[in-house]
Amino acid sequence: MKQTGSYLKNMRATAPLVHNITNFVAMNFMANVLLAVGASPAMVHAREEAAEFAALAQALTVNIGTADPEWGVAMQEAATVMTDHKRPWVFDPVGVAATRFRQDLSQKLLALKPTVIRGNASEILTLAGLSGSARGVDAGDHVEVAMDAATTLAQSIGGVVAVSGPVDFVTDGTRAFRVANGHPLMARVTVMGCSLNGVIAAFCVDQHVLEATVAALASYGLAGEVAAQTAAGPGSFQPAFLDALAAQTPEDLTAGAKVSAA
Amino acid sequence: MKQTGSYLKNMRATAPLVHNITNFVAMNFMANVLLAVGASPAMVHAREEAAEFAALAQALTVNIGTADPEWGVAMQEAATVMTDHKRPWVFDPVGVAATRFRQDLSQKLLALKPTVIRGNASEILTLAGLSGSARGVDAGDHVEVAMDAATTLAQSIGGVVAVSGPVDFVTDGTRAFRVANGHPLMARVTVMGCSLNGVIAAFCVDQHVLEATVAALASYGLAGEVAAQTAAGPGSFQPAFLDALAAQTPEDLTAGAKVSAA
Amino acid sequence: MKQTGSYLKNMRATAPLVHNITNFVAMNFMANVLLAVGASPAMVHAREEAAEFAALAQALTVNIGTADPEWGVAMQEAATVMTDHKRPWVFDPVGVAATRFRQDLSQKLLALKPTVIRGNASEILTLAGLSGSARGVDAGDHVEVAMDAATTLAQSIGGVVAVSGPVDFVTDGTRAFRVANGHPLMARVTVMGCSLNGVIAAFCVDQHVLEATVAALASYGLAGEVAAQTAAGPGSFQPAFLDALAAQTPEDLTAGAKVSAA
Repeated sequence: MKQTGSYLKNMRATAPLVHNITNFVAMNFMANVLLAVGASPAMVHAREEAAEFAALAQALTVNIGTADPEWGVAMQEAATVMTDHKRPWVFDPVGVAATRFRQDLSQKLLALKPTVIRGNASEILTLAGLSGSARGVDAGDHVEVAMDAATTLAQSIGGVVAVSGPVDFVTDGTRAFRVANGHPLMARVTVMGCSLNGVIAAFCVDQHVLEATVAALASYGLAGEVAAQTAAGPGSFQPAFLDALAAQTPEDLTAGAKVSAA
Repeated sequence: MKQTGSYLKNMRATAPLVHNITNFVAMNFMANVLLAVGASPAMVHAREEAAEFAALAQALTVNIGTADPEWGVAMQEAATVMTDHKRPWVFDPVGVAATRFRQDLSQKLLALKPTVIRGNASEILTLAGLSGSARGVDAGDHVEVAMDAATTLAQSIGGVVAVSGPVDFVTDGTRAFRVANGHPLMARVTVMGCSLNGVIAAFCVDQHVLEATVAALASYGLAGEVAAQTAAGPGSFQPAFLDALAAQTPEDLTAGAKVSAA
Repeated sequence: MKQTGSYLKNMRATAPLVHNITNFVAMNFMANVLLAVGASPAMVHAREEAAEFAALAQALTVNIGTADPEWGVAMQEAATVMTDHKRPWVFDPVGVAATRFRQDLSQKLLALKPTVIRGNASEILTLAGLSGSARGVDAGDHVEVAMDAATTLAQSIGGVVAVSGPVDFVTDGTRAFRVANGHPLMARVTVMGCSLNGVIAAFCVDQHVLEATVAALASYGLAGEVAAQTAAGPGSFQPAFLDALAAQTPEDLTAGAKVSAA
């Protein structure tokens, strides 16, 4: 891997337009995260325009948090556009274990071979189960339990899988990294994971997908560490986090990244 | 009633999963409120999964602020699941006087006998009118005017009705309490009332419904008082409020609650 | 024009109810902006109730950021109610150049002759192109390039067009003003433009539309300048901005407005 900060520097030079089909809870904060980090967000999910819009974007994120059948079609159409243009798209199978609808939709999205899948250990295990490569059990925050599932899932999609947790695990099915940046307050704020998807997508534009994903996780977690230094709780953490993302320099990221080969 | 703080303590020990079918304006802030207070939020409204998800949750909130006919069905199905499982659900008839659609939907939800109804005086009066127990007139913030309507409404659903205002009125149709916690800045921030529904639902899990509702209102209002001490306006009030909710101890709540029998 | 602050004073005396059919990203922040500035917001978009609700409101805003065909109908029905009642409505053609769906919907809304259209230079140029009065080209932030298009567009709707940028341009097709208030941090926060629509709508209630629009832009930009003085980045800017809107007095606005005839 190159210096971690170089991936941030390259992303900001491009300021990529990231198209997000994400849940309602995340839309505002995610857009602010992308603006703060230096990318350009757009939230577009209507079936009448999602595919057309995707063709204008450098990257896409798909999150099933508040999907419905219409959105499901829009997601598949937009993802297909990205695959056809060889542009990165990130899939977040949020809460996939909860309902049959999420499992069916996730299976369809998996078949389109996302560039990156990001989820917590439970979600990755469930998803690997859907892909036939592992059994779906509840892993909570135990990233270790999901390592094998992440590896086989990455192999089956020919992409990268990132398992979020106190220490993240990221693999392309062959190589793997751990990212130890972050702070417990991040789990007390909603849509922190969802919003990270956009940062990963932005970093992946025209960069090595595995390494860019690792750098995105480190950048995000480092901003959380900085924000936690001044935050009095989960409320004041949010503005401080956006400020920290915006203020982070490539040098800060290289110095602060806690990345190791796994 | 036991010590007010004990209801907060018990709620945090459970950290209940609260399923919310709420309006788009409230989704993000409400999720952050629930995380801050120590519960676990999920925002799920699609008809394809609402009932299935409800079966996984310890409590439900239903808010008609941005409903449509599809959501209306999801709300009724999810509420029925909670009733079948004898789990609490909270109904917020926001803006019910404004449109025929809201009145029709509210009537259907009323028939499912919510565990708790929370609204301002106007909403409670309109709702009582729909249930045939009072005339719907505009009461603005005048909680006093809605007391009789709240009492008969509580009797007709066999549940609890909470009328929000400068001093809240809470009744199960027999006993009643006033809660005097709160601060005027709370009315200058959107979805403060909507987000409170989630806190009430969380407190009601496995606790005495009337008393838990009173404790939830006191906890919420007290956090508003604490936040107002440092806020410079309605903008800085929001992060300060979330911080105050997260920092509030059971002892703080017992000491700060302004609860009296009505 | 009267003293700029007088338009703020009059708006607050009315505290108008502003009905917003806006995008999901903007809903929460826009509602908080309207509460902070002293108006009363409602976010209502379901086709089953939009027109009925519009009849209760003093002003309307329509924003196509996350529209779909159902919303498109609701927008047209609500706008027709406002026109019938001679009440102001503001149209924001956000991202109109991006998709055919947005262009078709914008054309229908244009035909209903909005009281005010607000957009950036690219959007105004595209919209003028749809109305046949100019060619649609990408102008980015270059307000100058869109001046002629804004003028002909204002003439064609018989209303006011406001082009947002570092220096805003506002015209009714005959007279024109420039508003130089604002701060670069405003471009680093999502939905700042969308939320401004509501402030314009509130100011236009029972006031001279061109002058009230100018005053609304000055008020909003001035609050941005004040917020930037204490903000450490785009995160802390948001609460500071809401605080500044709420704290702004008519005298502050008159003293701080950077308005000139164009």
